[in-house]
Amino acid sequence: MNTSFASLSEFRSLLRAMPACDSAAMEEARAHDSILTKPPGALGRLEELAIWYRGWRSGARGEIAAPQIIVFAGNHGVAARGVSAFPAEVTAQMVANFEAGGAAISQLTRVYGAALDVTALDLDRPTADFTAAPAMSEAECLAAIARGVDAVPETADLLLLGEMGIGNTTVAAALCCALFGGSPASWVGPGTGLDDAGMARKADVVAAGVALHGGHLDDPFEILRRLGGREQAALVGAILAARRRGIPVVLDGFVCCAAAAVVAKLVAGGLDHCLAGHRSAEPAHGRLLDALGLTPLLDLGMRLGEGSGAAMALGVLRGAVACHADMSTFAEAGIDGRSAGDDRTNAEAGP
Amino acid sequence: MNTSFASLSEFRSLLRAMPACDSAAMEEARAHDSILTKPPGALGRLEELAIWYRGWRSGARGEIAAPQIIVFAGNHGVAARGVSAFPAEVTAQMVANFEAGGAAISQLTRVYGAALDVTALDLDRPTADFTAAPAMSEAECLAAIARGVDAVPETADLLLLGEMGIGNTTVAAALCCALFGGSPASWVGPGTGLDDAGMARKADVVAAGVALHGGHLDDPFEILRRLGGREQAALVGAILAARRRGIPVVLDGFVCCAAAAVVAKLVAGGLDHCLAGHRSAEPAHGRLLDALGLTPLLDLGMRLGEGSGAAMALGVLRGAVACHADMSTFAEAGIDGRSAGDDRTNAEAGP
Repeated sequence: MNTSFASLSEFRSLLRAMPACDSAAMEEARAHDSILTKPPGALGRLEELAIWYRGWRSGARGEIAAPQIIVFAGNHGVAARGVSAFPAEVTAQMVANFEAGGAAISQLTRVYGAALDVTALDLDRPTADFTAAPAMSEAECLAAIARGVDAVPETADLLLLGEMGIGNTTVAAALCCALFGGSPASWVGPGTGLDDAGMARKADVVAAGVALHGGHLDDPFEILRRLGGREQAALVGAILAARRRGIPVVLDGFVCCAAAAVVAKLVAGGLDHCLAGHRSAEPAHGRLLDALGLTPLLDLGMRLGEGSGAAMALGVLRGAVACHADMSTFAEAGIDGRSAGDDRTNAEAGP
Repeated sequence: MNTSFASLSEFRSLLRAMPACDSAAMEEARAHDSILTKPPGALGRLEELAIWYRGWRSGARGEIAAPQIIVFAGNHGVAARGVSAFPAEVTAQMVANFEAGGAAISQLTRVYGAALDVTALDLDRPTADFTAAPAMSEAECLAAIARGVDAVPETADLLLLGEMGIGNTTVAAALCCALFGGSPASWVGPGTGLDDAGMARKADVVAAGVALHGGHLDDPFEILRRLGGREQAALVGAILAARRRGIPVVLDGFVCCAAAAVVAKLVAGGLDHCLAGHRSAEPAHGRLLDALGLTPLLDLGMRLGEGSGAAMALGVLRGAVACHADMSTFAEAGIDGRSAGDDRTNAEAGP
């Protein structure tokens, strides 16, 4: 594909008539779950996950066969403000590392049998420093969203989203502050490893950005354009494209979820097809998940980004869907599924 | 192998000179972790897991290649006391379901690329009802431990332990009550789905067992023999055998950890090579994990047993070990690993 949005209104048309979950398929999945060879509810959250997945895949049976991880990478003008423990050159170096198979996400992709696509977004043209100007023009922001739309393969049956971009926890904090309010400091954390002085500087940068653009923050698109970056815009496009194509999505950590929050504000229920892969150690992520009403699958103290938390969750989701798809029913296995509780009343009444 | 213990003292000799973790290998792994292409600590618990695994494998590099799941199954005289929502026949029916590939653990074994062994322990000869007599004779208990020892293949590089046995959350509650004290009710939960009346009956059964054997509960072996079952004894044997063979262990839920608690009481540090795969929804499991000092990897509301929680954790552990084994170092990837923090002081001092 080669999506382009001729205008903002053309993008906004993408937000209308978002497909809903197939509730009949979900009910059928719930009924199937209830006859599998296990006590009711004994697989806990795995059961909910499988039912959710079937609903968004319109009930298609079988296991997860074509999971696609996409890592979007971008560079940020605000990185020049000393808000990261690493220099901006590391974004391109890490993209090369992804492509060479040397990064954490490269190993996780292989272990969990996924496909990995790395989409680098104009790394040689960082966005503008949002403390001085809007990060992107309208056209730049729409172009980055379109890159995200086009990155989602029609054939995927699960999409796992990640990002890379030196400085982008600052961008995420600014997006959250503009979208949800609260003090800048409450959305700021150490990122790749800032000390207290660095975090104070980072909070000042977020505050300056939100103050500069304060008159334009009632529109989530404007928030994305003014304070976001290309990889956040691409994530917005990918989340929307996945919804149109019936592909459930697993979100990664703080930066990925900050982009997802733009979708949540753009369209009610816009994240119903998404789940949170994990809770990041970046402190604001827990707060953001609460604001989005998402309960993370894993809590392993990870804070790497690059889709690593989403990839770990793929392992869980594959197990959940496989149990639902392939377990025997009580009838098939010839197991006495009748609860002994039926006898229990008699036993109680006995001697 | 065909292990047999001619006497209790022969079994006790197994407890002496338990191999320690290879601390040099662990330090080498820690040093290797520090030069991989990620901010220090950014993979969170995955880093600790990989370092722990290398220590117990004496530093052998490479991924987890031969994970072995073993499910031990046994029947319990106490099941006749109405302590389970399912009849005792279901133990054998579920063993057949494991072998036919229809159970949850069958799917998880396949998805995570493990081997599955199901060891059924004299299902046609339930242990004695522990409210009336010791569950096992000394010879029966030693024989079940020996079955557990023999079930562990030398070639495994990770052992994941599970169990099946109608009535065995009652057995686990009795073991915990005898090992750690506290009220019987505090160790009792719904198991496969008891209601409040069922749980009250279950607590009475535990109380009766602990009272009957109260004069013999200062020895963990006697606790296992009098209140445990064959699958708990086999789990004890498997945990000890894995330690002797340098194989790290992932424990499953409440019943599996109750057996592990016997090992912890038999020998100090006896579970240092074990980790808890998950926190079960069975309420006493969290309390037991605290008592054992184990922090579970996953918390997904599962309460199925049969090794399912351990198997889910295999996904996490495989990812952790793969990242450690195969990620590039900063030097290999040509990435500027020097923290921008080195510039930061200068930047701060500048204008």
